[in-house]
Amino acid sequence: MEKDPEPRRRTVGEVGERALIGLFTAAAGRFDDDVVIGSGDDAAVLRGDGDVVVSTDTAVAGRHFRFDWSSPEQIGARAVVQSAADIAAMGGSLSGLVVSIGCPPETPVDRLLALNEGLVAQTHRLGGRVLGGDLVSSPSVILTVTSLGYLAGLAPVTLAGAQPGDVLAVSGPLGGAAAGLAVLSAIENGADPTLAQRFSGLVERYRLPQPDLTQGPLAARADAHAMTDVSDGLVEEIITMAGASELGVDVTSAAVPRPDGLDALAAELGVDPVRWALTGGEDHELLAVFAPGGVPDGWTVVGAVTPGPGGPTVDSEPVTDLRGWQSFSEA
Amino acid sequence: MEKDPEPRRRTVGEVGERALIGLFTAAAGRFDDDVVIGSGDDAAVLRGDGDVVVSTDTAVAGRHFRFDWSSPEQIGARAVVQSAADIAAMGGSLSGLVVSIGCPPETPVDRLLALNEGLVAQTHRLGGRVLGGDLVSSPSVILTVTSLGYLAGLAPVTLAGAQPGDVLAVSGPLGGAAAGLAVLSAIENGADPTLAQRFSGLVERYRLPQPDLTQGPLAARADAHAMTDVSDGLVEEIITMAGASELGVDVTSAAVPRPDGLDALAAELGVDPVRWALTGGEDHELLAVFAPGGVPDGWTVVGAVTPGPGGPTVDSEPVTDLRGWQSFSEA
Repeated sequence: MEKDPEPRRRTVGEVGERALIGLFTAAAGRFDDDVVIGSGDDAAVLRGDGDVVVSTDTAVAGRHFRFDWSSPEQIGARAVVQSAADIAAMGGSLSGLVVSIGCPPETPVDRLLALNEGLVAQTHRLGGRVLGGDLVSSPSVILTVTSLGYLAGLAPVTLAGAQPGDVLAVSGPLGGAAAGLAVLSAIENGADPTLAQRFSGLVERYRLPQPDLTQGPLAARADAHAMTDVSDGLVEEIITMAGASELGVDVTSAAVPRPDGLDALAAELGVDPVRWALTGGEDHELLAVFAPGGVPDGWTVVGAVTPGPGGPTVDSEPVTDLRGWQSFSEA
Repeated sequence: MEKDPEPRRRTVGEVGERALIGLFTAAAGRFDDDVVIGSGDDAAVLRGDGDVVVSTDTAVAGRHFRFDWSSPEQIGARAVVQSAADIAAMGGSLSGLVVSIGCPPETPVDRLLALNEGLVAQTHRLGGRVLGGDLVSSPSVILTVTSLGYLAGLAPVTLAGAQPGDVLAVSGPLGGAAAGLAVLSAIENGADPTLAQRFSGLVERYRLPQPDLTQGPLAARADAHAMTDVSDGLVEEIITMAGASELGVDVTSAAVPRPDGLDALAAELGVDPVRWALTGGEDHELLAVFAPGGVPDGWTVVGAVTPGPGGPTVDSEPVTDLRGWQSFSEA
């Protein structure tokens, strides 16, 4: 097997798994002292630091991302945010992750390397390391990121634990990812292509949500009673949270922070901006319940926990018509 | 959403992600004390127990398994063995795993639940727990298992570390999975269907390899100098191991243990049984290097480490014509 001078110009099938894994390992960079063994052996070994938080998330081309709507770097980075947000939602900090990539053999190598570069850079930005992975042939591109985190002595913050009288707060604005996706969909369906430039901030929120995940451990230190990240839309999350605590959770729709440009875009497309904020998924901001008076700086109160089992409500009304996103349709 | 009395008779798309995850969580069983938070929250939390070993592996329908060649339970169990073998190959013991399943919406629910049952049962047999997972829509069934393990104070056994004069040993027979696959392929291509009954032991080795993964920590305690599992075939593994230690590794082909029936099947199909033992992948037996005299009971010496950089050899000949399996073709 001769050394390939230009692997980036070839396909994954031409270059082969082993050569690609060598390129990936090089991109993962030097490991810190907390990684005993890194990428390239049977398994990675991470220095023990108390309890381990673990979560896995998969993104599939055509369903969770599109190469004509996002750059490969953004697709890789977004898969990291999606998985790391689950660590933050327990009050944890990212220590490292492993990634499995499936792709067709005809995938260009430079696309795969760019995806990996986005993934590695985002992992480093969040304070973690890429520990290893797997590369397989599959009918479409599919990315599974499994994140490991540490709690640094904090108790994990679960979905349950809300108390009547608690307040519900979010770490940032909601609906931006859904609005950005709506821009790209509208253009595909014939809308003015300048929409993407005029609302570029929202499109970027879809392509790469950038929640401040350090707010997860911060909320845990502030004694959050329950926490999750907003991956399926605020309404879906309060359904889950109310179910876990067997209490009611009521959201005040006007209080939910909306990102810049969202109201203007909604007016232009003739839709309700509040609906985006209530049901739009994939912002990955954190949603937590605190004792009254215990909400950390930077969080916005959006509702309250009510004596149960009243179930989840928005402006005191049931949420029946406000369901969010799921991977499969509901029966 | 009404309670579905017969979800097993419907498709994944009809039943929906949330209902399925509820069924999966129920199947995962009660957690032990070493799991702080299990399936059903944003992330799982595992009690810290020193350094953490982590590895991820993906299996794709049509490429790594076929529903007409294996039962769903075997497919789930095999994905666990494949991932857990990487933990054992570092000297670790399985503590838990997370699984991501992608499948088309038209997948029957009972197939998915059977796959999950095989996965959970095999995880429990290996001493671990299913900690959580993800379920997404994808063009074909794809399973990613990420295993976590612990070292119980042992130093991890890497691919490097072999010394000249060391001996190479395996924990069990090789070539059985490849031979079993050859049986199923031969029948598909018109061979006598009774072949599968007459060589059922080999077919079972393909469907669900059952290496004794407790030999991994045992080898670590016996001061193994290097270790891996035989996933890509013995020749591929010695190429990797020789490269990692920058030494030669020579296998004595006649010494490699072959499972019952393998020679008889090879005679019937007119192929070389030794080639199956040298290049067949997916047996997941452990391959380790020990100081002379340090080989644990139950292991079979199959070769020696030679002063390098002689590279990998079989019966003192280069291995050029004996390459094993890879996910993508080599250039």
